[in-house]
Amino acid sequence: MNFDYLFNTQLDALKDEGNYRIFAELERQCGAFPKAKCHDDESPDEVTVWCSNDYLGMGQHPKVRAAMQEAIDRCGTGAGGTRNISGTNHEHLLLERELADLHGKEAALLFTSGYVSNWASLSTLGARLPNAVILSDSLNHASMIEGIRHARCQKVIWEHNDPEDLDRKLAALPANATKIVAFESVYSMDGDIAPIREIVEVAEKHGAMTYLDEVHAVGLYGPRGGGVAEREGLMDRITLIEGTLGKAYGCMGGYVTGSAALCDFIRSFASGFIFTTALPPAVAAAARTSIAHLKTSDIERMQQRRQVARLRQMLDQKGIPHLENPSHIIPVMIKDPVKCRMLSDILMREWGIYVQPINYPTVPKGTERLRFTPSPLHTDAEIEHLVEALTVLWKQCAIAHAVA
Amino acid sequence: MNFDYLFNTQLDALKDEGNYRIFAELERQCGAFPKAKCHDDESPDEVTVWCSNDYLGMGQHPKVRAAMQEAIDRCGTGAGGTRNISGTNHEHLLLERELADLHGKEAALLFTSGYVSNWASLSTLGARLPNAVILSDSLNHASMIEGIRHARCQKVIWEHNDPEDLDRKLAALPANATKIVAFESVYSMDGDIAPIREIVEVAEKHGAMTYLDEVHAVGLYGPRGGGVAEREGLMDRITLIEGTLGKAYGCMGGYVTGSAALCDFIRSFASGFIFTTALPPAVAAAARTSIAHLKTSDIERMQQRRQVARLRQMLDQKGIPHLENPSHIIPVMIKDPVKCRMLSDILMREWGIYVQPINYPTVPKGTERLRFTPSPLHTDAEIEHLVEALTVLWKQCAIAHAVA
Repeated sequence: MNFDYLFNTQLDALKDEGNYRIFAELERQCGAFPKAKCHDDESPDEVTVWCSNDYLGMGQHPKVRAAMQEAIDRCGTGAGGTRNISGTNHEHLLLERELADLHGKEAALLFTSGYVSNWASLSTLGARLPNAVILSDSLNHASMIEGIRHARCQKVIWEHNDPEDLDRKLAALPANATKIVAFESVYSMDGDIAPIREIVEVAEKHGAMTYLDEVHAVGLYGPRGGGVAEREGLMDRITLIEGTLGKAYGCMGGYVTGSAALCDFIRSFASGFIFTTALPPAVAAAARTSIAHLKTSDIERMQQRRQVARLRQMLDQKGIPHLENPSHIIPVMIKDPVKCRMLSDILMREWGIYVQPINYPTVPKGTERLRFTPSPLHTDAEIEHLVEALTVLWKQCAIAHAVA
Repeated sequence: MNFDYLFNTQLDALKDEGNYRIFAELERQCGAFPKAKCHDDESPDEVTVWCSNDYLGMGQHPKVRAAMQEAIDRCGTGAGGTRNISGTNHEHLLLERELADLHGKEAALLFTSGYVSNWASLSTLGARLPNAVILSDSLNHASMIEGIRHARCQKVIWEHNDPEDLDRKLAALPANATKIVAFESVYSMDGDIAPIREIVEVAEKHGAMTYLDEVHAVGLYGPRGGGVAEREGLMDRITLIEGTLGKAYGCMGGYVTGSAALCDFIRSFASGFIFTTALPPAVAAAARTSIAHLKTSDIERMQQRRQVARLRQMLDQKGIPHLENPSHIIPVMIKDPVKCRMLSDILMREWGIYVQPINYPTVPKGTERLRFTPSPLHTDAEIEHLVEALTVLWKQCAIAHAVA
């Protein structure tokens, strides 16, 4: 029996609208980030990666690599079981303590990914707390949306980054509702940052919990890399802070932090935590080393900020429009999926510059973009090369019309 | 604002019924599996792990460790992005090819875990295929149940391992339904094995897809470790085979295999695949090495079978009842959560034997058990020590009454 016609019908529709995704096959060259070996026949053998979420290049840091390799020799390659059934390693607990400390919380709980931490935590809170209502920022990440959907509790969407709208929507809820305000600090596709203080104050006024996703901020903001909430001195007023080990920390995994009872609650009831093999202890050891390093070292953050500012400034000088925001993310809007893919292909093949086209469903249709994430490892020469390429393309193509 | 009373109310209920979980904090000693260092003050410093899902001890295999360490030096510690946005490494594609070959399929798709592969694939198939109906074995794993629930399509539960019931339920569905039969080969808690041939024949008769979870079978069954379906010569008749890299292969991650169109469909539409950081290339390299090794080496499987048979035989000699099944999993039924925990504690503290109590929600209430998974690395002396401990406990306690 052949079911491929069912699959191909929907894949063809994706292709027709220009949203079919082609993954770039790369090998990042450890020790030479952001350089990568490229396996695409039409592209140069070596390219510069301009869209990684290994924001600080910690994935190649000698201390982080050494910690992972050492733990492999000590513990092996995998955890060997779920956290409950033989899979809890001393390394998991050390990492959870490090994470709790990072966010100034009593406890932390590790997940296999940031996606799973959001999905499992929000679905558990929404499903199990009495009369739960989750108030979700309209631009929350897919993992939060799916978690809320899975909870099957009441859901209220509030206008993106709008505390006044949140205030109105909280006020309209019954007094006996358990209200959970879910939002992010840095929104990854526009790079804008939430008004955390105002949101927390509104939540407190209505007796609501706050659930803050800091995945694009941990390691990058705050004096110890605790995220935007650390920078603003607000961590202790947020009920749950969620983060990832897979972006600025250069490894893999996700987590939540909060009170001991909160973490124990999710630990005890979340299907996505209970029924899955634990992170390899070696990954936990690497992540802990990375976190500890970025708690005291500021040089990576400072150099990243310098290069982000530099790229912005040079784009401005050349008149290449990019979305204004206060973060490390530089979106250049193309607003058409086919043109976005075409530009990305030309950059890769003719300039050795790799930046993935960001199309639907990652961003809404009509807001397709190239999204640049300068790291401390991008040299001034690499920034100049990128800006030169974009300048040439901007003149060659009729793109300027599309981005007016 | 303090919400802990909300969490503690439900945690207290768990504690009252004996289902509150306490994780054993261990450090498996690489090179000396199944030995582990134990961090519990009341237990010996070194214990023998009897409940790991690293069924063949591949997590300590020198080749697997070396592959992971080498890839860390080459690619770094993390993938640096989602598969779409800079996170696809050559290592992921090599592993997907190895997995497709393992199951004789056109293609494979990697996920961050077996849980996510089931959840994301079943929810995508159920949600997106026209008039989808998922027919789910009544004892399917939590990850499948949550995936089916998330799909929000029609769901039909059929009696566990009962092709006749499946036949009746398929016959009752309308002709225009897209029917998906979801089941496992080895059920992890009872250790029984599905009648795959009969199920496939029933599915084919009704024009239904088959979705087979082989997570407790890959690496362990079949001449190349392709699972029970390989052993029975049925892989080509199954639409989708799902597996894990976190159990017999000793690493982390999950996957599906099937036609190229099927894998491309899930790749293109599954939120849980799209919006998450890819597996570390080093984990992919380790897993590929482990799979390749077990494709040609049979010694681990043979020695495991010997030790499984040996433990069963010695339990029989001592009159200690265990669930009959044709797999490598030996459940000793206790049928009470508090007794199950107590026995586990005594084994750990007085005998240095670690076997986690398996309580609700992993198994239904009233079927609590100790679940032993002998590996090729458990020595005859360790088996004798385990049986001696159980024999003494069987006499000491009044447990015999509970397991009649």
